[in-house]
Amino acid sequence: MPEADSFHMSSEEFRKHGHALIDWIADYHARLETFPVLSRAQPGEIRAALPPEPPQNGESFDKMLADVEKIILPGITHWQSPNFFAFFPSNASGPGILGDLLSSGLGVQGMLWATSPACTELETHVLDWLAQMLDLPGKFLSSSTGGGVIQDTASSASLCALLAGRERATNFSSNRRGCDGKLVAYTSAQAHSSIEKAAQIAGIGRDNLRLIEVDDAFAMRPAALAGQIARDRSAGLVPCFVCATVGTTSSNAIDSVPEIGRICREQGIWLHVDAAMSGTAALCPEFRHIHDGLEFADSYCFNPHKWMFTNFDCDCFYVAERAALIKTLSILPEYLRNKATESGAVIDYRDWQIPLGRRFRSLKLWFVIRHYGIEGLQHHIRRHVNLAQQFAAWVKADEQFELTAPAPLNLVCFRHRHGDETNQKLMDRLNRSGALYLTHTRLGDRLTLRLCIGQTNTELRHVRAAWKRIQEEAENISGDAVRNSVA
Amino acid sequence: MPEADSFHMSSEEFRKHGHALIDWIADYHARLETFPVLSRAQPGEIRAALPPEPPQNGESFDKMLADVEKIILPGITHWQSPNFFAFFPSNASGPGILGDLLSSGLGVQGMLWATSPACTELETHVLDWLAQMLDLPGKFLSSSTGGGVIQDTASSASLCALLAGRERATNFSSNRRGCDGKLVAYTSAQAHSSIEKAAQIAGIGRDNLRLIEVDDAFAMRPAALAGQIARDRSAGLVPCFVCATVGTTSSNAIDSVPEIGRICREQGIWLHVDAAMSGTAALCPEFRHIHDGLEFADSYCFNPHKWMFTNFDCDCFYVAERAALIKTLSILPEYLRNKATESGAVIDYRDWQIPLGRRFRSLKLWFVIRHYGIEGLQHHIRRHVNLAQQFAAWVKADEQFELTAPAPLNLVCFRHRHGDETNQKLMDRLNRSGALYLTHTRLGDRLTLRLCIGQTNTELRHVRAAWKRIQEEAENISGDAVRNSVA
Repeated sequence: MPEADSFHMSSEEFRKHGHALIDWIADYHARLETFPVLSRAQPGEIRAALPPEPPQNGESFDKMLADVEKIILPGITHWQSPNFFAFFPSNASGPGILGDLLSSGLGVQGMLWATSPACTELETHVLDWLAQMLDLPGKFLSSSTGGGVIQDTASSASLCALLAGRERATNFSSNRRGCDGKLVAYTSAQAHSSIEKAAQIAGIGRDNLRLIEVDDAFAMRPAALAGQIARDRSAGLVPCFVCATVGTTSSNAIDSVPEIGRICREQGIWLHVDAAMSGTAALCPEFRHIHDGLEFADSYCFNPHKWMFTNFDCDCFYVAERAALIKTLSILPEYLRNKATESGAVIDYRDWQIPLGRRFRSLKLWFVIRHYGIEGLQHHIRRHVNLAQQFAAWVKADEQFELTAPAPLNLVCFRHRHGDETNQKLMDRLNRSGALYLTHTRLGDRLTLRLCIGQTNTELRHVRAAWKRIQEEAENISGDAVRNSVA
Repeated sequence: MPEADSFHMSSEEFRKHGHALIDWIADYHARLETFPVLSRAQPGEIRAALPPEPPQNGESFDKMLADVEKIILPGITHWQSPNFFAFFPSNASGPGILGDLLSSGLGVQGMLWATSPACTELETHVLDWLAQMLDLPGKFLSSSTGGGVIQDTASSASLCALLAGRERATNFSSNRRGCDGKLVAYTSAQAHSSIEKAAQIAGIGRDNLRLIEVDDAFAMRPAALAGQIARDRSAGLVPCFVCATVGTTSSNAIDSVPEIGRICREQGIWLHVDAAMSGTAALCPEFRHIHDGLEFADSYCFNPHKWMFTNFDCDCFYVAERAALIKTLSILPEYLRNKATESGAVIDYRDWQIPLGRRFRSLKLWFVIRHYGIEGLQHHIRRHVNLAQQFAAWVKADEQFELTAPAPLNLVCFRHRHGDETNQKLMDRLNRSGALYLTHTRLGDRLTLRLCIGQTNTELRHVRAAWKRIQEEAENISGDAVRNSVA
């Protein structure tokens, strides 16, 4: 118990404010549809409402919560709104939020097994569960040569994979001597920007990341990959890493992992498979084909924080040979030495990631899986895919619009036939309206709109309203164009 | 509101379970002194208590919370215990936990300003507050050429700093062409292991990280640094980064930043200052001298999650020239383009860090600062330093023990005079007892014990009990030794 004049929040206050905050969050979720999805704040507006000087003396929690309502809420883009169709869903849930709260309340550091054995073992266990739930190859299980670890994001997972590939290709000498300008890595021209960022961070350089051309469905051309590898080898370069994507960010394109995998195996190159959003679909047997070829992969990741009701941050990263990853990232200064580590009987996750410290992130994943069960999770994934397919059918049936890419799962890429300017206008109007939020990309150098379905409470009525609004705004733009040409 | 047969946790259930969990956390904190601080779990014990198969159908929250009590708690090393003296405090607090809960409840992604303006602007604002609170040089303010950003850990902050230094030294060409084996970096032999890890990750290589020798107080010898830089330049190498430490992990040694800074400025080398735990002390004017010389630094970090009542993860990373950092880490794929970014009027924090996505971490920091006020934070920092100084005085007064390093703040390094074996035994007994948890390091090749004071509710009685226990166990070991020699 805290001292009397301690400035600390007392146990009674914590209960009172905690209950009030839980209720505030429940109310917030109930009010979500009343807010404009995309914040209308202007640059600097939030800061202008905050005092320039930090407080000399403590303030009441009620005052802080009132400021959240008054100052913070207008600056929120509501990712949890059922009308959020931008980027990727990042869908939270009650059990996810509560699991995160428990992690904060326990306040443990899982950098070593010994610094909280439950933090490490629950993580290993839940990641083994997930490997079963997605039917991943057995080598990714901790009982085999591999295992899973929670990273903050797929960006970090891809960087770890690239580093392990770099080390394996140089017989673990680049860790010691640094890079020498000869390493090359490969991904498709449609891969996530984090691969380029990883190549820069890892000392490989973006000029040495080959962005392999894609086919009409925006998937990597395996023959082009094979050709590039051959040319690089002839030039005396050292191919060390290939990243294939299962569900690209732009259009949900699915690279042919079986074909790419065979090339990587033949060439002895580390294959990482990034299934950040789409991997969750493999919870359902009917979508599991997206993981065909994963038996060739050295590492794999997907993000429960994207489409599996688990609060950010939670990327699940699997390796087929944990020894290679650990050898790449291991450090063991004296102050971290301990008997459990030296026994070799435990996992120390600090050697599976960039940072040293780590939160107890598996709690939220454990809560989500146990709350929904496999059955509940499958129900929602199927529901979301169905909604997206319904939306795609509406687009196809409207001659003013066209689909711009295959829609294999929950992301629909489409555009108005009147060209980039109309689509830009259309998106701006839709997002300004506050009724929904969607984002764009470019495919084949044409601006295309992306409608991504996966928010926890997105239902048919939201998708229907979105489509109606899209059609209406398109009509308005056409009307404006006619009026302008007449005037 | 969710559908009827949705599998989702209803609003009513969320309130009910949320209140129960808040109470569980309050009870947990009230019970903290009843648990052995260091978990007594054996490797594999937690996993053995968990079902090998994931659940097909959902389970009740009550069942999950019961398993937390039964299965998870025995596997927890209680970082929040007032008897936790290991590593660093990682002290959480009521407002910190609630700020984190609010972040989970809002569930926003702050990768771009537009994806929640409040997430970016509150972070910038609170980091400007902190710069004022620590009296950091004005260049680190966002209103100047620099600014602050929250990273997960000092490891990641140091990596970002190293990358920016690498790029600046190569005229931003290593991002493009990769490293060429000529870059060298510098830190002291007592610096945190994350600097070595960063050198490996960044393609520089640990052979090219010079571990500069330290003086009798375990601080870097500036003359040795200058000499090494000169030798490296003569050898045609390219010095790009120096990391100075304010409060080393092993012993809280404080490098001479003024002297190191002058060398770096003269040589045009990026200087990063890592004050992970100790930086918080600068909240008090009487400890601000630890930051002398910071006007020479290009970047600086300290961790409110170490000693400022803010739940992990929260490292505050400041740069003097944000342009250099952004140029190093920036990526802008089409799907992230937006008007606010293109206007140049906003900060997009994705370009200030390794991952793309980010949580709303400034909420917990805002809550902590507002709850305690500067006054409350100063009160506790002074209290912790006083307790550590009291402990150091007891050690000094006992002829069986000796201090093994200066104790400038809240960390005391000490050892029993009977050598390594006795100290190892002593630590093992203490930690096995469950009464307290402390860790060790090696200084001058002698095993030394570290007692780090900073837990939220650590008071004089806990430190007094710890010292009493240490003396008792030392007596027991000496007694055993006498009995053994007689037998």
